[in-house]
Amino acid sequence: MTEQIDSENDRDRPATSRRHFLRGGAVALAGGLAGVSDARAEADNLPPNVPEWMKVPGDPMGSQLYGTPSPFEKNVVKNIPKNLPQYISASGRTPLQDLDGIITPNGLFYERHHGGVPAIDPAQHRLMLHGLVDRPLIFTMDDIRRFPSESHIHFLECSGNPVYKKPYGKTASDLVGLLSCAEWTGVPLKLVLAETGLKPEAKWVVAEGADAAALTRSIPIEKCLDDAMLVYSQNGERLRPQQGYPLRLLVPGFEGNMNVKWLRRLHVTAEPAYSREETSKYTDLMPDGSAREFTFYMEAKSIITRPSGGQRLSSKGFHEVSGLAWSGHGRIRRVDVSVDGGKSWQEAKLQEPILTRALTRFRLPWHWNGERATIQSRATDETGYVQPTLAELLAVRGENSFYHNNAIWPWHIAEDGEVTNAANA
Amino acid sequence: MTEQIDSENDRDRPATSRRHFLRGGAVALAGGLAGVSDARAEADNLPPNVPEWMKVPGDPMGSQLYGTPSPFEKNVVKNIPKNLPQYISASGRTPLQDLDGIITPNGLFYERHHGGVPAIDPAQHRLMLHGLVDRPLIFTMDDIRRFPSESHIHFLECSGNPVYKKPYGKTASDLVGLLSCAEWTGVPLKLVLAETGLKPEAKWVVAEGADAAALTRSIPIEKCLDDAMLVYSQNGERLRPQQGYPLRLLVPGFEGNMNVKWLRRLHVTAEPAYSREETSKYTDLMPDGSAREFTFYMEAKSIITRPSGGQRLSSKGFHEVSGLAWSGHGRIRRVDVSVDGGKSWQEAKLQEPILTRALTRFRLPWHWNGERATIQSRATDETGYVQPTLAELLAVRGENSFYHNNAIWPWHIAEDGEVTNAANA
Repeated sequence: MTEQIDSENDRDRPATSRRHFLRGGAVALAGGLAGVSDARAEADNLPPNVPEWMKVPGDPMGSQLYGTPSPFEKNVVKNIPKNLPQYISASGRTPLQDLDGIITPNGLFYERHHGGVPAIDPAQHRLMLHGLVDRPLIFTMDDIRRFPSESHIHFLECSGNPVYKKPYGKTASDLVGLLSCAEWTGVPLKLVLAETGLKPEAKWVVAEGADAAALTRSIPIEKCLDDAMLVYSQNGERLRPQQGYPLRLLVPGFEGNMNVKWLRRLHVTAEPAYSREETSKYTDLMPDGSAREFTFYMEAKSIITRPSGGQRLSSKGFHEVSGLAWSGHGRIRRVDVSVDGGKSWQEAKLQEPILTRALTRFRLPWHWNGERATIQSRATDETGYVQPTLAELLAVRGENSFYHNNAIWPWHIAEDGEVTNAANA
Repeated sequence: MTEQIDSENDRDRPATSRRHFLRGGAVALAGGLAGVSDARAEADNLPPNVPEWMKVPGDPMGSQLYGTPSPFEKNVVKNIPKNLPQYISASGRTPLQDLDGIITPNGLFYERHHGGVPAIDPAQHRLMLHGLVDRPLIFTMDDIRRFPSESHIHFLECSGNPVYKKPYGKTASDLVGLLSCAEWTGVPLKLVLAETGLKPEAKWVVAEGADAAALTRSIPIEKCLDDAMLVYSQNGERLRPQQGYPLRLLVPGFEGNMNVKWLRRLHVTAEPAYSREETSKYTDLMPDGSAREFTFYMEAKSIITRPSGGQRLSSKGFHEVSGLAWSGHGRIRRVDVSVDGGKSWQEAKLQEPILTRALTRFRLPWHWNGERATIQSRATDETGYVQPTLAELLAVRGENSFYHNNAIWPWHIAEDGEVTNAANA
């Protein structure tokens, strides 16, 4: 379908003018199509070019007992860097630029492992809860399922998302694809802790995974008695192996690796464990030589996913700018979008429902005039915190931090519509 | 893990007493485990019986570019009746009794086809919008993607869910598994109609699918100008082939088949088409010989999914009763649950967020005393409509209806904990 944009007239039209989203984009039937007139289509009571797939029966019921995407979507898969030094401790990113809405389908949920993905038999899996408790207990999965349950939609994000230094990656997935969102179902951890009882000196809960890395993180007791959950289901079905099957910890808003997968042990203690993953890793080296540790919460952040790096605007005219915003501290209050390199900002529309510690989809109608442009988004959360620029962040953190980069991220749009990562320029 | 329930003491305890969800269920470490004492476990700083999967690296990153469930969940698949007369016009049900929360994963979303599942190339797919419009148009998928988008979580349900006559099926899936819920993203249909313009006499939009059945339904113009959507994504990713890839109509709250899949044509008319699927099918024969047609909305309904038919309560004591409620007319206002055959009812807790025309998860804590019981749920929606009993429904509709059975559904629990469909007795 050929675009026939009247750019002079389009330039001054408000982007929200309803009748002109596709000015010249869709084919007007009145103009006729090659070989098939509008009248003929009406007479047959069928559109022109009846496609081949209407002329024969389609695939029968049951050809997929568990469904998979269309073969035409075969390139929408997890984004796994080639030439990894090894694949046991590695990450696979969600293709954010290809997704809509806020729910990440389980097949495309991001992954980050430290000892590979264990294949756990749920009938043999156990969770031990011990330490500074009145009554240490070992739970089977059936025991866990007996507790009252809750379901909540929350994001998960790796704290190393994105990196601080060039090159930053070409696509939204390269940049911040260690980010996903799902509806989680499980047991509030506070109910399980009420079952064991807590001694007065209990201040931390050290969570350990049943993977080969025995990944271990210390969680403050306040979080464990607030919204932390023992999760067994994700988007309706049981957790995927890559997400901690059969049981994971969920600490909403906390950095990804604290949401310990394949959860086998909760050790209630007076002090943190100071494990590898909270000392030599997942801390940030500051300019004065000290290390920020136990940072916990992922700060407010946003990214434009469409248009984003690797995509191309097909023509001048109307385009919707769409992206994701989130904050570990609660709900997103507003998102502003700039299409002029940060000189001016417009408030984007947020898709309801706006949920605490969940992805929030934002959208802004935009009329692209065909000239070079830099677009970016800026999130503000319910605490009033405003997402900083990368320069602002580096001024405080210095050049040696590796984690917790929540900077505003600009995309560059060239005159031919090509979108690239402006920070790589 | 052996249960050691003190049934005499448990009988009079409120089900919500937090410290006793698992009374005797989980193993107390103080009692010791065979061969491994609590002290030993503490000394090693590891739980007893370190599993085999911690001793070797797990599966590497990238073994699944598009993830699938654990092999231990291989029986959680779509429920497709054996010995179907043919598989081109058939249905596959969601395994509701195995799922949590409200989101149905795309791989388990229910299916109902009339001419099989076409394999459509999105680059070749077209949507024609013609008839009583000012400017008939043909849209490519790229054109559709150019419009402003929205995302909404809505249920879909087949109107033949469940049947009116015995046998009713054993499980929740057998009974009402033609029901699922997803986050849908697409274009409000009213924006596309604004692009073509509508003539004053436009009263219906006749939607046609690009399947071999050319499934055709007439939608009132009021719905098309309200919340109807042209949908291309489901739970983040593009629609599955079974759900209408690359484009479907979504008319929230209307019976399933009106949400025309593989959408290729919208014909704006003054009268309905009176197609096969709105005359000889999907109408209800009333006692006076007339047919209810164009019923559109799915009335308020609910079902307990856990415990439900085919499951078994493992022991007396605490059990959470959990299920789903929904209404085509809007939000669920309340759900009541009876555990005594309908003599008394208790208000269940509804999981937030409670969304319009979406599944709503309800839960009620219950202390099962080990005696025979009949449990059932009753939904009330925001219009004040209360889900009827099957007897009440049959008194109005007679015995010849096939569709739109929204009756309260009771499950029977035997003394050994076995759960069966009480209406089959």
